[in-house]
Amino acid sequence: MKALAKTKRAKGFELIDAPVPKVGAGEVLVKVRYASICGSDVHLYEWAPWMAEHMKEIPRIVGHETSGEVVAIGEGVKEVQVGDFVVLETHIACGSCYQCRTERMHVCRNLKILGFDVDGSFAEFVKVPARNCWKVPPSIPKEWASLMEPMGNAVDTVLAEPVAGQRIAILGCGPIGLMGIAIAKACGATLVIASEPHPLRRELAQKMGADIVVNPKEQDLVEVVMVETKGDGVDAVAEMSGNPNAFLQAFEIVTPGGWIAWLGLLNQPVIFNPSDVIMKAVRIHGITGRKMFSTWEMVTRLLTSGKVDLDPLITHRFPLANFEDAFESIINHQAIKVVFELS
Amino acid sequence: MKALAKTKRAKGFELIDAPVPKVGAGEVLVKVRYASICGSDVHLYEWAPWMAEHMKEIPRIVGHETSGEVVAIGEGVKEVQVGDFVVLETHIACGSCYQCRTERMHVCRNLKILGFDVDGSFAEFVKVPARNCWKVPPSIPKEWASLMEPMGNAVDTVLAEPVAGQRIAILGCGPIGLMGIAIAKACGATLVIASEPHPLRRELAQKMGADIVVNPKEQDLVEVVMVETKGDGVDAVAEMSGNPNAFLQAFEIVTPGGWIAWLGLLNQPVIFNPSDVIMKAVRIHGITGRKMFSTWEMVTRLLTSGKVDLDPLITHRFPLANFEDAFESIINHQAIKVVFELS
Amino acid sequence: MKALAKTKRAKGFELIDAPVPKVGAGEVLVKVRYASICGSDVHLYEWAPWMAEHMKEIPRIVGHETSGEVVAIGEGVKEVQVGDFVVLETHIACGSCYQCRTERMHVCRNLKILGFDVDGSFAEFVKVPARNCWKVPPSIPKEWASLMEPMGNAVDTVLAEPVAGQRIAILGCGPIGLMGIAIAKACGATLVIASEPHPLRRELAQKMGADIVVNPKEQDLVEVVMVETKGDGVDAVAEMSGNPNAFLQAFEIVTPGGWIAWLGLLNQPVIFNPSDVIMKAVRIHGITGRKMFSTWEMVTRLLTSGKVDLDPLITHRFPLANFEDAFESIINHQAIKVVFELS
Amino acid sequence: MKALAKTKRAKGFELIDAPVPKVGAGEVLVKVRYASICGSDVHLYEWAPWMAEHMKEIPRIVGHETSGEVVAIGEGVKEVQVGDFVVLETHIACGSCYQCRTERMHVCRNLKILGFDVDGSFAEFVKVPARNCWKVPPSIPKEWASLMEPMGNAVDTVLAEPVAGQRIAILGCGPIGLMGIAIAKACGATLVIASEPHPLRRELAQKMGADIVVNPKEQDLVEVVMVETKGDGVDAVAEMSGNPNAFLQAFEIVTPGGWIAWLGLLNQPVIFNPSDVIMKAVRIHGITGRKMFSTWEMVTRLLTSGKVDLDPLITHRFPLANFEDAFESIINHQAIKVVFELS
Repeated sequence: MKALAKTKRAKGFELIDAPVPKVGAGEVLVKVRYASICGSDVHLYEWAPWMAEHMKEIPRIVGHETSGEVVAIGEGVKEVQVGDFVVLETHIACGSCYQCRTERMHVCRNLKILGFDVDGSFAEFVKVPARNCWKVPPSIPKEWASLMEPMGNAVDTVLAEPVAGQRIAILGCGPIGLMGIAIAKACGATLVIASEPHPLRRELAQKMGADIVVNPKEQDLVEVVMVETKGDGVDAVAEMSGNPNAFLQAFEIVTPGGWIAWLGLLNQPVIFNPSDVIMKAVRIHGITGRKMFSTWEMVTRLLTSGKVDLDPLITHRFPLANFEDAFESIINHQAIKVVFELS
Repeated sequence: MKALAKTKRAKGFELIDAPVPKVGAGEVLVKVRYASICGSDVHLYEWAPWMAEHMKEIPRIVGHETSGEVVAIGEGVKEVQVGDFVVLETHIACGSCYQCRTERMHVCRNLKILGFDVDGSFAEFVKVPARNCWKVPPSIPKEWASLMEPMGNAVDTVLAEPVAGQRIAILGCGPIGLMGIAIAKACGATLVIASEPHPLRRELAQKMGADIVVNPKEQDLVEVVMVETKGDGVDAVAEMSGNPNAFLQAFEIVTPGGWIAWLGLLNQPVIFNPSDVIMKAVRIHGITGRKMFSTWEMVTRLLTSGKVDLDPLITHRFPLANFEDAFESIINHQAIKVVFELS
Repeated sequence: MKALAKTKRAKGFELIDAPVPKVGAGEVLVKVRYASICGSDVHLYEWAPWMAEHMKEIPRIVGHETSGEVVAIGEGVKEVQVGDFVVLETHIACGSCYQCRTERMHVCRNLKILGFDVDGSFAEFVKVPARNCWKVPPSIPKEWASLMEPMGNAVDTVLAEPVAGQRIAILGCGPIGLMGIAIAKACGATLVIASEPHPLRRELAQKMGADIVVNPKEQDLVEVVMVETKGDGVDAVAEMSGNPNAFLQAFEIVTPGGWIAWLGLLNQPVIFNPSDVIMKAVRIHGITGRKMFSTWEMVTRLLTSGKVDLDPLITHRFPLANFEDAFESIINHQAIKVVFELS
Repeated sequence: MKALAKTKRAKGFELIDAPVPKVGAGEVLVKVRYASICGSDVHLYEWAPWMAEHMKEIPRIVGHETSGEVVAIGEGVKEVQVGDFVVLETHIACGSCYQCRTERMHVCRNLKILGFDVDGSFAEFVKVPARNCWKVPPSIPKEWASLMEPMGNAVDTVLAEPVAGQRIAILGCGPIGLMGIAIAKACGATLVIASEPHPLRRELAQKMGADIVVNPKEQDLVEVVMVETKGDGVDAVAEMSGNPNAFLQAFEIVTPGGWIAWLGLLNQPVIFNPSDVIMKAVRIHGITGRKMFSTWEMVTRLLTSGKVDLDPLITHRFPLANFEDAFESIINHQAIKVVFELS
């Protein structure tokens, strides 16, 4: 089969011929239909230093945000059957560690990630444990399905605590931040302030429903928040930028007794005094992965009910062969979300 | 001043002349502007047996859902000032009992209720502790303000647990149930099924945003729920009818691991086997009053943000003198919410 | 192998010869070492009407509270290996329903219960899905291990909300209620009031750490609670008796804003007015099964840390052949917990 | 009256003569009986740079941890009466801000702190709002009462989430950390690992119930935790040291999905990469003050039930005149908790 792979420890990917994976007991073979590019794929493509350090085995078929059709199932598989259209949970949990045995599989201590630790899905076929398949109802456009995975991150970040009746700031309007805006609005946030330097993303922030969109390079976010909340600050901050300035602003704009969710990974350490968090009695939630699988249920419902619309986010579609254009469109800030159409 | 009072232990009220109350330290005098009729006022008007039993002192000025202008403040009052337009929390808490000292003033053990235990607000003026005043922002229509009190009940019922992404049934579409529908939709419920026998209320249930409206006298609610949820049942039930059939249906339609909030008071005991609740691991929330005052903050935000519209609910307006027409319009099921215009 | 079975639809069990079960993929064969008698086994033995109704297939090997050694594993089993000493989760979940897919496997909609819906463990060997095995650390006495299953119910009931610094009443001091007393004390309850009519159980309630032990046939529980709490009532009630009087007393003794956990199944409906629950803003938790497997982790830790001692509860031990004596010792209220020693 | 005051912007305090405060409406005069020294008093005594910056008005009567007898009450005071023995909540909240109106008075935006923003209690008399008095039951030794204030911090830190059945590390064993050890044990923590460089404090950590006591200058805390938890890490960390190394170790020793509570204020910023918190999905709780007054209720119950013993902590007692010896005993690490005996 055709597959996109990291073949050398340097920038770039390569389109290779690879054998179709064979499924064992409890496993499933998926014929990939749509697969979308995650920010981490871009880091891998660019061979960012921290990614280079993380990546053990080469060559590796890349890609993880995936939807497709089940075409074969291994022994003992009951969760899905051949013909099901599914999206994949990309975190493969061991099922046996302390975390897995206490309903927290998303922080499994032996986690393997599709497209990094095992072969991924920018390929004609991909093999996963049956448990990692989530059936997509027909009322969700098939093209959206692979976006349900990052939308799960957005759900866990923005809904780390209830947002009904809350004022929330969303820092960073990449694809996940943009989804976060729509989720916050759909779930009752009464004020959504988005902060983002790039104009295309700011435009989309507006379209996804933000009440106020701030350009932090030109405006003083703290001042905007304080004016809009009459000095209270926001009840919640979703830090989705990974930007050190935004990270630090979160402590200033959150109201005493409020909360912050951290999703955006920072490239480097920050200098930070926790006294602000302490004196304000702030709660912080570190967010990783998606709860397996209550988060997926939430994502599915927000989409099937029409409460969240993903159309504005899919700005580019490519066949796998044009992968270089696909990655460059993101690197150049022309694209928001890029979908590979595989079959 | 003119005031509506219960003057005899029998059906009916009487318009009397009463002295304007005098405020002491920590108290506030409010010139009543709008006051609305609660279901409990109707029971008091009709002199329902349980109400007759509850009502200790006669004569008593009645009415509690109230908005108006602060016209005098007692010594030490800092919460409001003369000229503020306020709505009243109608539960007067002692501030000293175990409940009051542990952030649960809404279940104060020495609670006094406006218009029942102390003189009420269907009058030109009413006196309350300063703490019971909640300032109404100018963006909320003044006519809506007295409805914020029952809307607080709706908020505490429907948001007893997060409803974002949840499927909820609302049983009983009186004014509070109708508000509950709008709140559930605004806060991310992905399916709202309302059940109500009266046609006018069903019509309004639709208008307030219910996805499915059931007439439980003609349709099988359990069947409808099971079809709409593909056999899962609903995640949440807000029992707002006080009807024994609805009360029992709640246990059938709730999904295992889901929750039920009880607001509707029943006139009489039910026969009931708790084994259903146990085997399904259901959580039940008894709801009374409004959290003081986080619930009020939530109500205010849902209204100022435009997420909930109360206009459809105010079907009748009367001067106080026409109180008999006002009460009869509710008794005859012509009205949903009736507002007295006092000044 | 020797096995105890329900062979006719009438009182009694029979010791039969049965084939040793064969394990398939994902399954495990356990050589039973200790198995203890649950109250539901007694109902099955006595052929209580509701049990007769529930029980579909006869003959059926009975028994579910089980510990033993893994002697064979099926294909793909990673959770345990041959030689592991395990206790069994007795609820066999499907893994695919809405509840199973949202971290609530204990309320699986297709639940099968060991010894009722599939062949049980009062036998030399029993077969279960690998997931249903919980490894018992060596510091826990082997004889205690099968009691970890009912102790899971006690944990979920008494810890339905945090009990640290809380005053709790435990109604019914059967084995689970007695475990509940010890758990409440170990987890910081500052007052534990136990209510139980049988003298042997009251004696053990004292031994397990109850501060106050009430005989509800001779003392007024409500009065005792009000005196001991200076009129506040208790913060929490664990209803573990299944007795209708106790069930109703719970509403009287709980403080406004407090909570009740229901575990005890009632033989028949109660007449009940939910207004008490509503006016007091009480929360109710229906408890079934054990969370899989965070509850098991909690049970394990309470035992390995020495915080809970199960020795006083195991009053009788029998070989399987003496099963009639075993069951009669419970029926006659001579025994608290009876353990079969199988190998 | 005699009072200890900061009279110049330099190291040291001075014993002065000051007028007895006059109580207004809603206020209470307390004849101070026992008052204890807090770490922040020491910083004030030593005139630490950040304290110098914080302190606006001089002269200022210092001291805040206080117990005593109500000797006069102002108009409208219902909470206490003359003769009551009380301990003081030292945070004076405005009652009107967003936080105060939403059951979060402990993060009041206009907070004044006794002994810093208003005159304090190292004096014969002190004046506070009636609401700030908490009645001490006679079963609590009077000498302990002023320690209930810092014990409230310990409660909010260690019980930020339930500790029943949890493994917790307590970093820093000053008086609050030591109380935290006892609280964790009393509330069901199954493993308490304490870390503290000073030998006297380590000795007390043992006495207060820590299972493992580590000297972080000589032992590798991370290694100890990993050995004791078989590689899982602890479920919870209470950071009570304000030490940058301990602050950073918390992220290493906490298990994925666990939580950290931050109480210890750091003198200076730390360099820190939040990615660890994110990838581990850790929750962080900033802790300040005491919940008003549910925390006080919890403290009271833990003491009256005998679950926590404060005797080991009170190592020194002084009359107010010997204040220099008192402060030096803390500075020299000879004392744990020092109590002034005032009357």
